[in-house]
Order: sequence, then structure tokens, then C-alpha cells
Amino acid sequence: MSVLDRINSPEDLRKLDPEELDILCDEIRAFLVDNISKTGGHLAPNLGIVEITLAIHQVFDTARDRLVFDVGHQCYVHKMITGRRDCFDQLRKLNGIAGFPKPVESIHDAFIAGHASTSVSAALGMARARTLMGEDYSVIALIGDGALTGGLAYEGLNDAGASGEPLIVVLNDNGMSITKNVGGIAHYLAGQRIKPSYLRFKKIYKKLLGRLTWLYNFNHGIKESIKHSILPSGVFESLGFQYIGPVDGHDIEKMTQALRTAKEMRCPVLIHAITTKGKGCAYSEENPDTYHGVSGFDPITGTLKSSSPSFSSVFGDKLTDLADQNKRIMAITAAMTSGTGLTSFASRHPSRFFDVGIAEGHSVTMAAGAAKQGMIPVFAVYSSFLQRAYDMLIHDIAISGLHVVLAVDRAGLVGDDGETHQGQFDVAYLSTVPGLVVLSPSSFAELRAMLTFAVEYYDHPVAVRYPRGGEGRYTDGGLAPSKLIRTGEDITLITYGISINDVLDAADSLKEKGISAEVLKLDFVNPIDYRSVRRSVRKTGRVIVVEECNSEGCVGQRIAADLNKHGIMPESLILKNLGSGFVEHGTQQQLRRLCGIDAESIVKAALECVSEEQEIEQETN
Amino acid sequence: MSVLDRINSPEDLRKLDPEELDILCDEIRAFLVDNISKTGGHLAPNLGIVEITLAIHQVFDTARDRLVFDVGHQCYVHKMITGRRDCFDQLRKLNGIAGFPKPVESIHDAFIAGHASTSVSAALGMARARTLMGEDYSVIALIGDGALTGGLAYEGLNDAGASGEPLIVVLNDNGMSITKNVGGIAHYLAGQRIKPSYLRFKKIYKKLLGRLTWLYNFNHGIKESIKHSILPSGVFESLGFQYIGPVDGHDIEKMTQALRTAKEMRCPVLIHAITTKGKGCAYSEENPDTYHGVSGFDPITGTLKSSSPSFSSVFGDKLTDLADQNKRIMAITAAMTSGTGLTSFASRHPSRFFDVGIAEGHSVTMAAGAAKQGMIPVFAVYSSFLQRAYDMLIHDIAISGLHVVLAVDRAGLVGDDGETHQGQFDVAYLSTVPGLVVLSPSSFAELRAMLTFAVEYYDHPVAVRYPRGGEGRYTDGGLAPSKLIRTGEDITLITYGISINDVLDAADSLKEKGISAEVLKLDFVNPIDYRSVRRSVRKTGRVIVVEECNSEGCVGQRIAADLNKHGIMPESLILKNLGSGFVEHGTQQQLRRLCGIDAESIVKAALECVSEEQEIEQETN
Repeated sequence: MSVLDRINSPEDLRKLDPEELDILCDEIRAFLVDNISKTGGHLAPNLGIVEITLAIHQVFDTARDRLVFDVGHQCYVHKMITGRRDCFDQLRKLNGIAGFPKPVESIHDAFIAGHASTSVSAALGMARARTLMGEDYSVIALIGDGALTGGLAYEGLNDAGASGEPLIVVLNDNGMSITKNVGGIAHYLAGQRIKPSYLRFKKIYKKLLGRLTWLYNFNHGIKESIKHSILPSGVFESLGFQYIGPVDGHDIEKMTQALRTAKEMRCPVLIHAITTKGKGCAYSEENPDTYHGVSGFDPITGTLKSSSPSFSSVFGDKLTDLADQNKRIMAITAAMTSGTGLTSFASRHPSRFFDVGIAEGHSVTMAAGAAKQGMIPVFAVYSSFLQRAYDMLIHDIAISGLHVVLAVDRAGLVGDDGETHQGQFDVAYLSTVPGLVVLSPSSFAELRAMLTFAVEYYDHPVAVRYPRGGEGRYTDGGLAPSKLIRTGEDITLITYGISINDVLDAADSLKEKGISAEVLKLDFVNPIDYRSVRRSVRKTGRVIVVEECNSEGCVGQRIAADLNKHGIMPESLILKNLGSGFVEHGTQQQLRRLCGIDAESIVKAALECVSEEQEIEQETN
Repeated sequence: MSVLDRINSPEDLRKLDPEELDILCDEIRAFLVDNISKTGGHLAPNLGIVEITLAIHQVFDTARDRLVFDVGHQCYVHKMITGRRDCFDQLRKLNGIAGFPKPVESIHDAFIAGHASTSVSAALGMARARTLMGEDYSVIALIGDGALTGGLAYEGLNDAGASGEPLIVVLNDNGMSITKNVGGIAHYLAGQRIKPSYLRFKKIYKKLLGRLTWLYNFNHGIKESIKHSILPSGVFESLGFQYIGPVDGHDIEKMTQALRTAKEMRCPVLIHAITTKGKGCAYSEENPDTYHGVSGFDPITGTLKSSSPSFSSVFGDKLTDLADQNKRIMAITAAMTSGTGLTSFASRHPSRFFDVGIAEGHSVTMAAGAAKQGMIPVFAVYSSFLQRAYDMLIHDIAISGLHVVLAVDRAGLVGDDGETHQGQFDVAYLSTVPGLVVLSPSSFAELRAMLTFAVEYYDHPVAVRYPRGGEGRYTDGGLAPSKLIRTGEDITLITYGISINDVLDAADSLKEKGISAEVLKLDFVNPIDYRSVRRSVRKTGRVIVVEECNSEGCVGQRIAADLNKHGIMPESLILKNLGSGFVEHGTQQQLRRLCGIDAESIVKAALECVSEEQEIEQETN
């Protein structure tokens, strides 16, 4: 029996001796590689955090103490230790365990995590609640150096440091976000890393200072200054934290020691742990960004499943081409170079490529500044992460009507990353931004046309939103306010983006059943081509609006208001969308079916409304 | 002729000798006090920044160099210097000059500013555009220490410091945001302030180090450590900035010198200027928070116009009372203690009151953490500033369904602060947050009832949104999904919040004209009491929805979709809202008229739709 097989709860872990712990680390890594190679998921981040996770479970009881992950994709080891090892064949699958911490899944998951930089804030709230309610447990925030580039982390540290609340921040510093970490704070951490053990040094230096009594003959001002400069005052200490580190994050014993010390200090403490992303697996250690998140690979060689073209890669290639011709184009990413397809742009136009860290708000405002002075900034960002910049879209771009191009990737359902990552809201929130044009391509060819329009022919705020993955049966190109894809008499199917494929399938099925569906595809989600909508609805008298967007603020609601305003009352108006809740993990097509926006559901809805009316007609007759 | 009278452009300023400059400062302060005492506006911030502004104009040409304000309410001196002195009697009045920088108003206003912490990001974008386009001008970000608590500022500094872009950040450090500044960074700055001139010290200490040659006999590791510790490495230098300071921000000559030095350095430079908020005016210097933003006062004594009860004060009083009884209630503000009415709460329940700095995102996530562990956090925040936390509402509160109470102040039109501050979007964006209940009181009594419900009787995410200022003719209390305020036959007027007063006035006018209007008031903006809406619309067949919200995602659109879904086709459906653009400054009532949501406009719309139909009927007959 392997050591891992004996670990069914954190208590089992605490019975192991150091040698067994080392064996366990190896077994966990083998388990991760083996499982993730089949299911896909986040490999390198979890390989890097094995020892830190075990050390935390040595010192704390996560059923009571609160362990708050940041971003959260590095929670696999934690899930393995807390009774969920047997669920890893269903990782990120429909009804299986999530790839992120999830309180409804286990008492050991303290808080939702999927977006970056939230952990310190959430942990501080918990620590304050604990103190105010007179309870006694520890709160630990586990944050990576990548997440530390996000402003929210700084807001949390700023408040936490001054609060005096007992709270432990474990900084898992591997010099990476998903790719290499960027920004001033990354340089700073790099400087800290090359120092010898800081605590040891502090002791020695204090002794040294004691002997230099002649120094104290200087005037008071200089003496004060010397004290300020000599007593270490790093960034974290400046913010009010006690700093422990750097600690080798792959040394369980040292990490356990540091955590025990921090627990006893009863104040805001930051433990700076140094780790290697992808640790213990040669190919992953060498190319941690390649193995950050993977969809499946050969566990021996690391050979990845070959990937087919995606909207992301088409976007990246087209933008790179456009930038060859137009020197005013610059590209911005918030630590998502590869995910947004910008790798080739970065290498072909390095001086016009900006990875600003996990800082979506800053990306937008920085882009606005650049646009104001004549550049054409293109910010490529995932739909759910752009939510962070909602205010900046309104305040820094829209009020001035600046020509910033938003390339909104992962719009609509994203699949296995689940509820924190679904692009369920962009159509609604982007449409509230005054003057923002929102385009939604349904094919690679349309994406190219829309991007060209947005960059070269338009001069105001504009977003192009496109889905995760590749195109479907619809591959036509061109750009128009809307496109009448198919004419019909009985019912109008209105849609945009990737949903066109299910709608076309539905139209085919309906045709077989003798129902003639008109298909109107919106290229512009904002403003909507209401004129064409009205024309079609007037003709067919029935309409279904199909979209990968939540119900409140969706295109269907806006169409309803317009029809009403113009006195058009269709016999049926059915809105098929993602509803008013969250959508969990599963494949995109599974989720479409769950939400009732797949071809079959559309056919069913169409048949119902046609037959209902026939019934009503029959009744009336 | 006073010196001030001779200053019609920045060029005139550069002709003055030091003595005249000093006189000018006094005259500017007198001008500010005199004018703002009549028009209202931001007093203390502008009194504190007179010399810094003049120094900037000595060194830079703001028509070409780009001066980016942060928050922007400290731009008055800049506006006076750049040809707008004669417009100050119309400050913040309809069609008068704005209280914030506005590029459309003057070439000297480089960028929109109204929300905090944007300046470094915008300036960095400008600096990058300048460099990429091969141009040559300076970019200066002018930021207060309050705005430095916002994560966006940190994201900007982090990117700017690493960029190497020539860029000057002037930190106007007065130890205040609106009230006393908070957080770790504030402590840090306080520490910096008590140091003697930093640059001078660095020089002396380097000399000193030179003599201590025996130190170099230590082993390399320790030597490196000593260097790291001895060479000053403050927070800003850690982020990659060259630091100049502290400089006396009221000494024009020293400030000018620092700015010239910074300009020549051609890298990211931060000038740390120390100022006194409210400088040069006794009552304002003593109570800078009282005189931060004022509506009018006696210029000699400083006596403020007495203020009447407002929704903010009613909220604060009620929450304080509730917290007397319920120890689980905690209050959070993002540097807006007094503006949100929390002053009495802060003094009565100091251990449960948290001013976290200008950090709306952190406020929400911290509240979520506290709610998760059993507290009832109430975050009081202005509608337009809560836009900063849109993602946190979705990710940290809504996914887990946590009982956080949002007290959304300044919802709807705010008046003279203009487009950056109008609460035009909250109804739309809050309604997209899954499961968030949104309540909208129309009177003080309703606010008390709704707050009690939200805090004591509800157990999920909930927002109570209320307007700036006081109540109107409607003063009833109670809480219901919706309230049928008046029954009628000819037309249904649907509204919520403060708009009820204009709607009731309109209903009165219509009655005089023989038209019987039914008035349905929604207490819940989300979810909407559609059943009552349908019932009324079925009866009257005509409906006008009146609301202080932009058109996209408004309540009217959602009602239209519901009516359509249920096969109800009113003869008229008119949506009266703020439209799809921005609303500038003016009084709230002026703006209501401009947007067509005042009583008169409602009456006009009602008459038109009734008579149009009569015409159609006549034609049909």
C-alpha cells in the first residue's frame, strides 16, 4: 500500500514521519501527472505547491481554520488531502469535482476562488469576523506572486497590515504568473529571493549595530535616518506585515516551522516561500507556462494533444498582421499572453506589446491614456476578468469616447473552468457602457473582418467578443449590422456569436418537421439592428432569441422593449439564454443543453410555440 | 490691479518674480474662498495645492505636456491659471465649467478625472504613446495620498516603475483622503514625512559607507545584504521609481526645482510633496474634512449652510441604532465616512467600523469574507464608485450567496458633480448580479424599513439604493414588492425611488386634465413584481416607466420583456429614463428636466400617447 493510499483526511497526514512525507510528495506528484494527463487541468501550479500544502495541513485544521486560496487552480493537492482523491477522474467534468475551491463541495474549502488577488481581502474579512465574534481560529491566505500584481491584493495588504489582525499570508513565489511575472513588484521579489535568510541576517546585523556605538554620536536626524534605513523595511513591512522569509517552499520542515512561528505571532504575518513551478516533473519544470493549464498530454514525454485553431489564435494572428501595416497598434494583456493568442504578436512587435500583470483595471485606463495620445490600443482579455474593469470602461474610455479596442475572449460558456470563468455577463454589462460598440463574430472569418473594422475603420470605443474554442458549421465572413442567414415564414430565430451553429441545426430540424424558420444573426450586439429585427418579426409573428448571456440585460430583453415601443406584438417571444444564475463546469455542449440553448432545446421551444398557437387557434375556431 | 488679474494664461505666470508669486498664492486662496463660499465646491483640496500647481506651470506647458489629475477635484487652481478664472461664478452649474478636469473644456485638461487612482495608469499610457510615436513631451500624474490606497494606483505604479518610461508622479501627501488617510501605506508615508530630506541623507550616508572599509571584509552574502539594507529601498523605489522627497509642497521654488530635476531624469520619478490640506484659511486648515466639499458657507467665519436630513444621514442613524441591538452588524466605508452618513456609527461602534481606504473592490471582498464567518457587513458606497467592485459582487458575494448588505448612496442623478459621479448605472449592473435583491426606497421611512429588512430579515446578497439629498412629497413608509400608490384607468405610471415625487406631480396634473393615471411604485427593483405590473397594464393598456437609470438594462426594458412573454401588448409602452449617454453637471431638478423625467415631461408623454391613440381611434372610426 502506498503512503498516499493511507491518506484519507488531514489527520492521517499528521501521523507520518519526515521520510514518509517525502515519499508522499513524490506519490502526489505522480498522481497529479497521471490524472491530469487524462482529464486535463492545472498541472504546473499544483506540482509547485505540494510541500506548502502539506505543511499547512500539518499546522492547521482546515475544517476550522480558514485556508483561503487565491485564483484557486492550485488547490488540487488540498483536495486530494481532504477526502476528494477518488474524485479526480471526474475533475472538472459535469457533476464531478471543480478545478477550483468550492465551499459547497467540502468544509475544507473556505472560500470561492477563480479570479486573482482576492485572498487577502477575503481572509481579512474572516479574521475580523473571528475577532469580533470572540472566536479563535487561524486564517491563512495563500497567494502567488502573479496575483500580487493585482490591485485588489494591494488593497487587501494595505488594510490588513494596518489592522493588526492575526492573519497569515503565504506568498508562493515562483517568479511566474502564468508566464513570467512582470512589473516592479516582481523585480522587488526577485531581489528578495537572492538574499540569504533574512531573519538570520537581521540578527547578525543588530549585533553589529550594537558594537558601532560611535555611530550614535551623529546628530539625531541622521541617527533616525540610519535606523530607518538599517532596520529592514521591505515593501511588506512598510505595509504593516511581519515578514518571514525567504523560506524554501519545497522544504516541508522549514515551511512547517515558519507557519508555526507565524501562528504564534498573532499579528499580520507574511511568509515568503520560494518554489519552482512545475516542480518534480522534468518537462513541466522546464516549461511551466506550457504546462500551466493543459487539456491532456502524454504523461511520460509530456507531448501535448495538438490544438486546432481557435478564436484566440485567429485573433492573435490577425492582430499581428494588422500591426505589421499600422505602427499605431499596440497590444495589452493582463498576464494572459498565451491564453489570448498574443504570443506571436509579442515576439514580432515586442516594443508594442505590454503585459501589465494581472491588472485589468490598469490595462483599460492605460489603454485609454495611450488612445488619448494617438495610439490604437487593443486589450485582449477574458470576458469574466474584464468585469474587474467595468468602472474604467465607463470612466476612462466611454466619457471621452476614446478609440480603445477590447478583444473579449472566452465570451459565453467556457466549459470546464466553471462558474467563476463563464463569460455570462459581458453582453449585458458591455451594453450598459455608453457609446461602446459590441461586435460578436460567429466564425474566424467574421472575427478577422470585425477586428479589422474595430482597429482600422472605427474611431470610438469598441469591443469584439468571441468564444472559447473553435468555429462550428458556420464559417462565412463579412460584417453587417445583422445578417439574414435564412429566410422563413413561421418563426424568427435571432442569435449572435457561436450560438449560430445550434440555431442552424435547429432550423434544419424544424424544416424537416415542416416549419420554416427565418434565421437572423446579429453582428452588432450593441447597437442592435432593430430595424431588421422588426421586419422579420412583423413577417413571422413568432420569435426566439438564443444567446449565451444571462437573462437580465440580455439582447432578448432589449429587443422586447424595442418591439413594444414600436407596437409590434409577436404571438410568441421566447428568450433562450443562460437564465439568472451561475453555470457550473462541464463541456460547453453539455452546458448548452443544460441551459436549454442547444439545437434540440430550440427545436422543442419552437415546436411548442407553434403548436400552442395552433391549439389556441383550434380552440378559438 | 492685483497680480491675479494679470494672469490670463500660464505664460503670464512665468513672468512673475518670486515675491509676486507669493502674492499670487494669497490672491488665489482669497479668490477660491470667496467663490466657493457662493457656488459650493471643493475648498480644502484646492487650498492645499496652490503652490504645486503654480510650480507645475512654471516647468511644464500643459497645452503640450500632459498633466493628469487624480480624482480631479483639486483642479480649480489649474483652471484659474489656464484661462477659466472668469467662469468660476458658474462653477458646477448647468452649462458652466465642471468641478473636474474635462478635455472638452480646455486643451490644458489632459484627461477625465472624477474617480480615484486612475492618474498613473492614464499617464503611463500617454507616456508610452509618446515614446512609440517618437514625440517629445512630459507626462505628469498628480495624485493624492488618499488615492494611493486604491489598487488601481498600485497597478499603475507597478507597471510604470518597471517600464522605464520617462514619467513624473507628483504625490501630494497631506495625510488625508477626504478624512484622515488609512492603511499600511498611510503609516509608511507618515514615516517618510518625519525623515529629513532624503536625498541629502543618501549623499551623507554614501560618504559614511565609503569610510567603513572594514565592513567589506565580511563575507559576500552579508555584504550584499548590508548594501540592500543600507541603500534606501522604500516602497516606491522597490517598484522601480526614482524617489525625490520629501519636498515642502508649499515652497514653490523647491517644488519647481524638484520638477525640473525629475524632468531631466528621463525615467519614472516620484516626487513626494508634503502639503497641508486647507492651507492658508484658518477654519479650513483646522477641519479640512469639513471643508473638503461644501455647498456654501460664510467666507469670514466658515459657518456652513445648515444641512437638512438626507437619505445618507437617515441611513447612518438607522444603521447605528440597528447595531446597538445586533452585535453582528459591521459597517464598511471606502474613505467616505461622512459622505455616507457613518460618522455617528464610527464613534458609537468603533470596533465594528472599518474605513479601508479608497478600495471599493477590497471592501466588497472583505465584506464577503466577514459574512462567510457570520458577521453582517454593511458596505456604504456611492453608486458610481461601486462600479469598481462589479466583479467582486459577482465572484465573491453572489456565487456563494453571502449575506452582504450594500448601502448604495448617490443612486441616480447627483447633480453638480457631473458625469463621473452620476449614479446612472447601478440599477442595470446590480440587476445582472445573480441573486442580488435590489431595493429602492422613496422616502426616509421606506429607507429605514428596507435597511431593517436587508440587515435583520434577509439572509442573502441585498442592495438598498437611495438618492443624494432629501425626500420629497412622498413620505410614506413600509416595504412591499410594489405599492399601488394611486388607482386609475387611463394609463399606468411605473416608477421607483425618488422619481415617485415627479410621477405623483404628473398624476395630479393629468387628473386636472381629465386623465386618470394609476401609479405603481416598485420597492424591489430586482426581482421586479411583474404580477402587479401585468395586472395594472392589462387594466389601463398604456404604461410609462419613469426611472433615473440609463436605458440599456433598465427596469423598463425588463418589464417590456415580461409583458411580451405573457402576451400582454399595451397600446403604448414609453420608457422615460436617462437615455444611453452621460449626464453632465447641473442641479438634480435641472437634469431631470433635461432628461425628460420631470413631472412636466411625464405629463407631456402621457398626453401624447393618450391623444395619439384617440387620433388613431378617430381615424379608424
